[in-house]
Amino acid sequence: MQYIAAAIAVFGASIGAGFGNGKVIAQTLESMTRQPEMSGQLRATMFIGVALIEAVPILGVVIALILVFM
Amino acid sequence: MQYIAAAIAVFGASIGAGFGNGKVIAQTLESMTRQPEMSGQLRATMFIGVALIEAVPILGVVIALILVFM
Amino acid sequence: MQYIAAAIAVFGASIGAGFGNGKVIAQTLESMTRQPEMSGQLRATMFIGVALIEAVPILGVVIALILVFM
Amino acid sequence: MQYIAAAIAVFGASIGAGFGNGKVIAQTLESMTRQPEMSGQLRATMFIGVALIEAVPILGVVIALILVFM
Amino acid sequence: MQYIAAAIAVFGASIGAGFGNGKVIAQTLESMTRQPEMSGQLRATMFIGVALIEAVPILGVVIALILVFM
Amino acid sequence: MQYIAAAIAVFGASIGAGFGNGKVIAQTLESMTRQPEMSGQLRATMFIGVALIEAVPILGVVIALILVFM
Amino acid sequence: MQYIAAAIAVFGASIGAGFGNGKVIAQTLESMTRQPEMSGQLRATMFIGVALIEAVPILGVVIALILVFM
Amino acid sequence: MQYIAAAIAVFGASIGAGFGNGKVIAQTLESMTRQPEMSGQLRATMFIGVALIEAVPILGVVIALILVFM
Amino acid sequence: MQYIAAAIAVFGASIGAGFGNGKVIAQTLESMTRQPEMSGQLRATMFIGVALIEAVPILGVVIALILVFM
Amino acid sequence: MQYIAAAIAVFGASIGAGFGNGKVIAQTLESMTRQPEMSGQLRATMFIGVALIEAVPILGVVIALILVFM
Amino acid sequence: MQYIAAAIAVFGASIGAGFGNGKVIAQTLESMTRQPEMSGQLRATMFIGVALIEAVPILGVVIALILVFM
Amino acid sequence: MQYIAAAIAVFGASIGAGFGNGKVIAQTLESMTRQPEMSGQLRATMFIGVALIEAVPILGVVIALILVFM
Amino acid sequence: MQYIAAAIAVFGASIGAGFGNGKVIAQTLESMTRQPEMSGQLRATMFIGVALIEAVPILGVVIALILVFM
Amino acid sequence: MQYIAAAIAVFGASIGAGFGNGKVIAQTLESMTRQPEMSGQLRATMFIGVALIEAVPILGVVIALILVFM
Repeated sequence: MQYIAAAIAVFGASIGAGFGNGKVIAQTLESMTRQPEMSGQLRATMFIGVALIEAVPILGVVIALILVFM
Repeated sequence: MQYIAAAIAVFGASIGAGFGNGKVIAQTLESMTRQPEMSGQLRATMFIGVALIEAVPILGVVIALILVFM
Repeated sequence: MQYIAAAIAVFGASIGAGFGNGKVIAQTLESMTRQPEMSGQLRATMFIGVALIEAVPILGVVIALILVFM
Repeated sequence: MQYIAAAIAVFGASIGAGFGNGKVIAQTLESMTRQPEMSGQLRATMFIGVALIEAVPILGVVIALILVFM
Repeated sequence: MQYIAAAIAVFGASIGAGFGNGKVIAQTLESMTRQPEMSGQLRATMFIGVALIEAVPILGVVIALILVFM
Repeated sequence: MQYIAAAIAVFGASIGAGFGNGKVIAQTLESMTRQPEMSGQLRATMFIGVALIEAVPILGVVIALILVFM
Repeated sequence: MQYIAAAIAVFGASIGAGFGNGKVIAQTLESMTRQPEMSGQLRATMFIGVALIEAVPILGVVIALILVFM
Repeated sequence: MQYIAAAIAVFGASIGAGFGNGKVIAQTLESMTRQPEMSGQLRATMFIGVALIEAVPILGVVIALILVFM
Repeated sequence: MQYIAAAIAVFGASIGAGFGNGKVIAQTLESMTRQPEMSGQLRATMFIGVALIEAVPILGVVIALILVFM
Repeated sequence: MQYIAAAIAVFGASIGAGFGNGKVIAQTLESMTRQPEMSGQLRATMFIGVALIEAVPILGVVIALILVFM
Repeated sequence: MQYIAAAIAVFGASIGAGFGNGKVIAQTLESMTRQPEMSGQLRATMFIGVALIEAVPILGVVIALILVFM
Repeated sequence: MQYIAAAIAVFGASIGAGFGNGKVIAQTLESMTRQPEMSGQLRATMFIGVALIEAVPILGVVIALILVFM
Repeated sequence: MQYIAAAIAVFGASIGAGFGNGKVIAQTLESMTRQPEMSGQLRATMFIGVALIEAVPILGVVIALILVFM
Repeated sequence: MQYIAAAIAVFGASIGAGFGNGKVIAQTLESMTRQPEMSGQLRATMFIGVALIEAVPILGVVIALILVFM
């Protein structure tokens, strides 16, 4: 049963991270196109944003790994 | 059964955090592009917003960890 | 069974809070960009709104914690 | 079984409240940006609206609490 | 089994009321912004509308309470 | 089993009524804003419309009450 | 089992009637706003349309009542 | 089991008829508003269309009635 | 079991026919409004289209009737 | 079990045919309105398209009939 | 069990083919209306496209037929 | 059980291929209409794209065939 | 059970690859139409993108093949 | 049971990666079309973004491989 639990946790982590990051990075690219001189600042904000978004999914992957090897 | 419960809690936390944060950070990037001189203020509001959004998912992760190690 | 119940409660709380807060904070950022001189007033309304939205999900987390430790 | 019932009730309450309040507060912020001189009146209507929307979800939370401690 | 039934009834009531009221109140706020001199009339119509919308969900909550205490 | 049936009937009634009425009343408010001199006629049509929409959900609530007390 | 069947029938009837009528009546209100001099004709068509839409859901309610009292 | 079957048939009939008729009648009302002098022709086409759409759902209701009384 | 099968077949037939016909007839009405002099040709095409769309759902109803009386 | 299989096959055939044909025929009507002099060519393409779309659903109905009478 | 498998395969084939072909043929009709002198070339591309889309669903139907007669 | 597995694999292959190819080919037709002189190049890119998209679904069909004859 | 697992893995791979590739290739075609002189560069980026997208689905197909022959 | 778990993990990984990457790469292509002189910078950001998005799905594939060979 714990294998299924690990799979569900990874499932949610993949979809949450894919959706959130995809939205943020696509918006970064669009903004860079509209204001090329702000590329550095936008990319820095993007890294912070991606780190904030991936915090919870990475925890989900960690929980999944704990469940697999427990 | 408690492993499945932990997985469901992490699943919801990942998706909720990914959706909310993705929306907020993408909007921040768009706003920074339109008014570059407000970058500092927008980024500060973004940090507050991300913290407010992640409050409940982080609690969900904590509950999941309690369930895993209980 | 009560562990699953706690997980469902946290699941709903995460998604409800993530959706509602994400919408409100993104709108705040957009409004701040359009009228920078109203930043203070908009952010104050945002805090009230976030508090009103998180009232029910926090209750859901409390119920989940009660269910976990009962 | 009553724990699951409490969780379902809280689940619906969180999502209903998050959706309804998120929509109303985001609209309030947008309207305040378009007509700053109406801020007071709009915020008053927002409080009434949030109270009306949260009436049913709070009842759902109360029912959930009754089910938990019964 | 009747606890689950009460939870389903409250679940539907929360979502139905949250959706309907959220739409009506958000529209009221938008209309007040476009025609401030009609605020009173619009808010009166909003109260009537909210009462009409909440009629069925409140009945749902009542049925849920009957099921809980039966 | 009849309690679950009552809950399903009330569930559908809440959502159907919330969706239909929310749409009609929000449209009424928007129309009143665009043509304030037609407020009376629009509100009268709204009452007829709400009554027509709520006919079936109220029947659903009645059936639910019959099922609860049978 | 026949109680569940009655509930499913009423569930579909509520949602079908709520969706169809909500769309028709909201359109009637919008059309009345654009051409006030056609109010009578539009409202007459609305009554015919609502009657045509509610024909099947009312049959569903009748079948539900037959199932409940059988 | 045949009661559940009757309910499923009525469920689909209600939703199919509600969706199809709602779309057709709302379109008729919008078209009548744009070209009032074609009201008669449009309403005639509407009646034909509604009859064509309701052909299958009415057959579904008939099958449901056969299943109930069989 | 064959009653459930008949119900599922009728369910799909109702929804497929309702969706397809609703779209075609609504488009016919919109086209008639834009080019009233083509009413005849459009209505003829509509009849052909409705017949082509209803071919499969009517076969579904026939299969359902075979299943009911088998 | 083979009756359920026949029903599922007919279900998918109805929805696939209803969706595809509805889209194609509605587009044909819209195109005929914009360029009336191409009616013949468009209607010919429509017949080819409908035939191509219905190829697979008709095979599904045939398989359903085989399953029913097997 | 193999009958259900055949039905699921046909179900997916019908929907996939209906969706893909419906989109391609509707687009062909729209393009023919905008550039009538390219009708031949567009229709040729349409035939190639429909053949490419139907490759996989036809394989699904073949697998279903194998499962039925196996 | 392996027949159901084959059906699920074909189901996903049909829908994935239908969706992806439908989108690509419809876009090709739209692009050919806007720039007729690029027809050759666009159609070549379309063939490459369709081949890339169908790689995975064809593998799914192959796995389904292996499962059927195993 | 491992056959079902292989089918689920292929199912997800087909849909993920179909969706992602369909979006990328359709966008490539649209971009080539707007800037024909960039065709080479766009197509090169498309190949890189398709390779990056198909990395995970191909791994899913490999896992499915391992599960089938294990 | 661990095979199903591996399949669910790969399923989520495929869809999450397909969605996120598809969005990012399509946006990159659109941006390259609008500002060809930024191609290098945009493509570099795309590679970083794709790497960040695929971090979690690749972990999901690794967990699936661990589950398969465990």
